[in-house]
Amino acid sequence: MKQNEITILGAGLIGSLMAIYLKRQGLDVSVYDKRPDKRKTPYYEGGRSINMALSHRGWKSLEQVGLKDKVLPLAIPMYGRKVHDEHGGTTFIPYGKNKQAIYSISRGKFNQLLAEEAERLGAVINFEHKCVDVDFSNQEITFETKEGIYKKEAPVIIGADGAYSSLRMAMQKQIRFNYKQEYISHGYKELTIPATSKGEFAMDPNALHIWPRGKFMLIALPNPDKSFTCTLFLPFEGSKVCFEKINDDSDLESVFKHYFDDAYQLMPNLKEEYFKNPTAALINIECYPWVQGHSILLGDASHAMVPFYGQGMNCGFEDCYILNSYLDKFGHNSWDLVFEKFQKQRKPDTDAICQLAMENFVEMRDSVADPKFILRKKIEAKLHDLYPNDWIPLYSMVTFSDMGYAEAYAQGKLQEAVMDKVMADPLITENWDKLDYEEIINIMETAKAV
Amino acid sequence: MKQNEITILGAGLIGSLMAIYLKRQGLDVSVYDKRPDKRKTPYYEGGRSINMALSHRGWKSLEQVGLKDKVLPLAIPMYGRKVHDEHGGTTFIPYGKNKQAIYSISRGKFNQLLAEEAERLGAVINFEHKCVDVDFSNQEITFETKEGIYKKEAPVIIGADGAYSSLRMAMQKQIRFNYKQEYISHGYKELTIPATSKGEFAMDPNALHIWPRGKFMLIALPNPDKSFTCTLFLPFEGSKVCFEKINDDSDLESVFKHYFDDAYQLMPNLKEEYFKNPTAALINIECYPWVQGHSILLGDASHAMVPFYGQGMNCGFEDCYILNSYLDKFGHNSWDLVFEKFQKQRKPDTDAICQLAMENFVEMRDSVADPKFILRKKIEAKLHDLYPNDWIPLYSMVTFSDMGYAEAYAQGKLQEAVMDKVMADPLITENWDKLDYEEIINIMETAKAV
Repeated sequence: MKQNEITILGAGLIGSLMAIYLKRQGLDVSVYDKRPDKRKTPYYEGGRSINMALSHRGWKSLEQVGLKDKVLPLAIPMYGRKVHDEHGGTTFIPYGKNKQAIYSISRGKFNQLLAEEAERLGAVINFEHKCVDVDFSNQEITFETKEGIYKKEAPVIIGADGAYSSLRMAMQKQIRFNYKQEYISHGYKELTIPATSKGEFAMDPNALHIWPRGKFMLIALPNPDKSFTCTLFLPFEGSKVCFEKINDDSDLESVFKHYFDDAYQLMPNLKEEYFKNPTAALINIECYPWVQGHSILLGDASHAMVPFYGQGMNCGFEDCYILNSYLDKFGHNSWDLVFEKFQKQRKPDTDAICQLAMENFVEMRDSVADPKFILRKKIEAKLHDLYPNDWIPLYSMVTFSDMGYAEAYAQGKLQEAVMDKVMADPLITENWDKLDYEEIINIMETAKAV
Repeated sequence: MKQNEITILGAGLIGSLMAIYLKRQGLDVSVYDKRPDKRKTPYYEGGRSINMALSHRGWKSLEQVGLKDKVLPLAIPMYGRKVHDEHGGTTFIPYGKNKQAIYSISRGKFNQLLAEEAERLGAVINFEHKCVDVDFSNQEITFETKEGIYKKEAPVIIGADGAYSSLRMAMQKQIRFNYKQEYISHGYKELTIPATSKGEFAMDPNALHIWPRGKFMLIALPNPDKSFTCTLFLPFEGSKVCFEKINDDSDLESVFKHYFDDAYQLMPNLKEEYFKNPTAALINIECYPWVQGHSILLGDASHAMVPFYGQGMNCGFEDCYILNSYLDKFGHNSWDLVFEKFQKQRKPDTDAICQLAMENFVEMRDSVADPKFILRKKIEAKLHDLYPNDWIPLYSMVTFSDMGYAEAYAQGKLQEAVMDKVMADPLITENWDKLDYEEIINIMETAKAV
C-alpha cells in the first residue's frame, strides 16, 4: 500500500481545503465527488444553505494555506446582530470587540476558489463519481459513474462527503460504530431581499439581521451583489406558525405581514420564491470512531451540526488544520497514529460545538429579543473590556479564538452560572454600570479553580 | 395497490409470529429472508444468542395464536436467579411469586416451529432473498438472490429483519428519520456446560445461574438436552479482565479458575469453545418514525436492546400482539391509521425497555452479589405479598404482566426512591421483618398521586 496516495471523498469546502493541505504536504491527492463539475454543468444546490459565516477558525486555516487575501474580496464583515422587532424597530448587538466580525460568504464561489487552488497544486478532482461502497479490509472503494461501476484501491481515504457521507454509511455497517442522527423539529427555507432599484443594499450590510419571534425566526446575510440571502426557520408542523400551515399566497402574506413586515416590504419575489424553494430539514450527527483502518471521516461527515452557531464550516476547516498539524508532527508513514491522535483530541470538541449549536437556536430565535439578554451581553462585554484575559464571553471564545470548543463550553457554563446570579438582582437594569466587576471576576476565578 | 398483500422482511422469531397473525387475519403473506432455509442448509448462527428467556408478554402472544402448548415442551422454567460467589457458594433469589418463572428456550427449534406454523397457515417463505433497497414512493423492494437482482412491488412492508435491518437502512436515507445505534463497552461469548457423564444437568436446571463479578459476569441457561448455554460478558478492552487480555489457554484458565472456578470444573470444552466462538458485540438501537408510507419496522429492527432484561424477543412478540389488535380494530384497508396508532402508542414503551435493559446490566453483574440487594428484594417481595395490587416489583411488572413498559419504568423509579429511604436505616438488616409495611405503601401511594 502506498501511504502517500490519498483519496478524498467530496470536493466541497472541507474536501477541497484538505486537498490543498495534503498537496502542500507533497502527497498524491485524488478527490472524488458525486456531483458534476459546476464549471461545466451548473446545477441547483437544492436544500443546501447558500450563505455561511466565516470566522476566526476558518480564517486561520485559510491564512495557513495562503488563501486569506484571495478569499477576503468574497466576504462581507458582519460586526453584530441587528435584531428587528415586530414594529420595525432595530437593536444592534455587537458580536465582539471593535472590528471583530464574522464574514458572510456564499458557498458557490468560495467552493470553486478552493477546488481550483487544489487543482492548481496538482490534486485531481474526479466529478460524477458516486462512492457506493468501501471495503475496509482491502482499502477498496466502489464507484458508480456514468460509464458504470468500478473498484479502486485507496490506501488512505478521507471522507469529507458531508452529512450524508457514503464513507460513514459504510462504516456504520462495521461492528462497534456508534452513530446518532437527529432531526430537529424546525426546517428552513431560503428567500431573498434583492438590491434596491438604485443597486444598493436594502439594509445595513455589516450585520447579521435577525427577526426573533420566540418559536421561529427569520435571518438575513449580505451578499457581494448587494442582495441579502434570508433564511426562514419554522417548525415543520404542530405550531400556530409552521410550514405545514402555509399553503397559499394568502397564508404566506398573513405570516409575513404580521411577523416580518419590514422585511416583507423588501421582498418583491417572496411568493414565487417561497413556493419554488425547497423546505429543508436540519440534522445533527454524532458518531465514533471516525477511523476504520486507513479511512477517516472529516467535517460534516463526522459531526454535522445545526447552523445556529455559524461554526459548521469553521469547525470543518479546523479539522483540516489539526489533521495537518499531526501530519507535520508524525510524518506521512504513520496514518494509524495520525488518525488516532486526531480523533481522540477532536471528538470532545466537536461534541461540544454540536451541543452549543443546538442551544444557540433558542438564543437566536428568542433570547435576543429580551432586554435582559441585551443587558447581559453588555455586562459581559464590559467584563471582557476590563479583564480581557479573565472574562472572554462564550461567543467570543467560540468565534474569535481557537480555544478548544470543549474548553469554551465548560467555561461558558461557569460564566452562565455567575451571570445568572448577577442578573438575579432586581435592580440590575439601573445598577449594571456600578457593579463590582472585580468581585465578579473573583467569583469566576474561584469557580474555575474548583 | 392491494392492501391485503403483505410482505414481511425477516423469517426470524418476530417475522414468523407476525406472519402467523396476518394469516389468521386472512391476508396474503410473503416472507423474505436473506439466510438459507435451515431445514435444507443448516448453518452456524455466529454471533447471535442461542438462548432466550420467554416470559409473560411472549406467552400471551403465543397463546393468542394457539401455540402455547406446542412451545411449552421446548421451554424450561427458571424460577429465580442462582447467584454463584467466588468460593462456589450460591444464593437463590426468586424472580416473582411461587410458580412465576421465565422460560429458557433455544432460538433454533423455536424459530422453526413458528416458521412452519406460518407456512401451514399459507404464508410463503422465500429464503436467500436479500433486500438491498426499498423505494418508498413506489412501494417497491429490490432483492438480491442467487439468480440475480430483481424488483418486486410490495403494497405493505413489515420489516422484522433485526438489528441490522435493511428496511431501516433504506429509511435512514429518508428525510427526518431519527436514528441512534450505540454499542456498549462489553461483548459476549457463548460457552457450554454439557450434561454430566450420567446424562444429567450439572446444576439446578430451574434457575438462571449468574456469576456476578462487578464489572463482568458469566450466566448460564438450561437446555432440554441437559446442557447449559453459558454467556460470558466482559469488557472488550481496558480492564483487568477483558477479551483483549485473554489470548491463550493460560490467560483463559487463570481468569476462569480465579473468578468462575465452580463453573470451570463443569466446562471440559472451555478452551476449544472459547477460541472457536466469536466475541459478539452488544448494540442498542432507537429510531423514529418507524413508518414510511406503507412500510413499518417491528422488533429489533426498530428497537434492538441489550439482553439484560430478557425482553428483546418478548417485546417483539408484544409488538405483533399490539399491531394485530389495531388490525382487529381498524380493519385491513387503513394501514396508515393502523401503523400510525401503533408507532405512537408503542414508542414510549420500547424506549423504556431499552433503558431498563441497559440499567439491568449493572444489577446483574454487580448488585445481585450484594447482601443489601438481596434484602431489598426480600422486602419488596413481602410488600408484594401483603399488598399484591399496590406494590408490584419492577421486575414483575416487566416480566409477569403486560403493563406498558413506560408505566412500569415510571412506577419502578418511584419504588426505587421509596426503597432507598427504607434501606437507609442502618439497622435494616435486623429490623426488616418488623417494618411498618402499611406506611411504606402509603408513601408510595402519595408519590404516585403527585
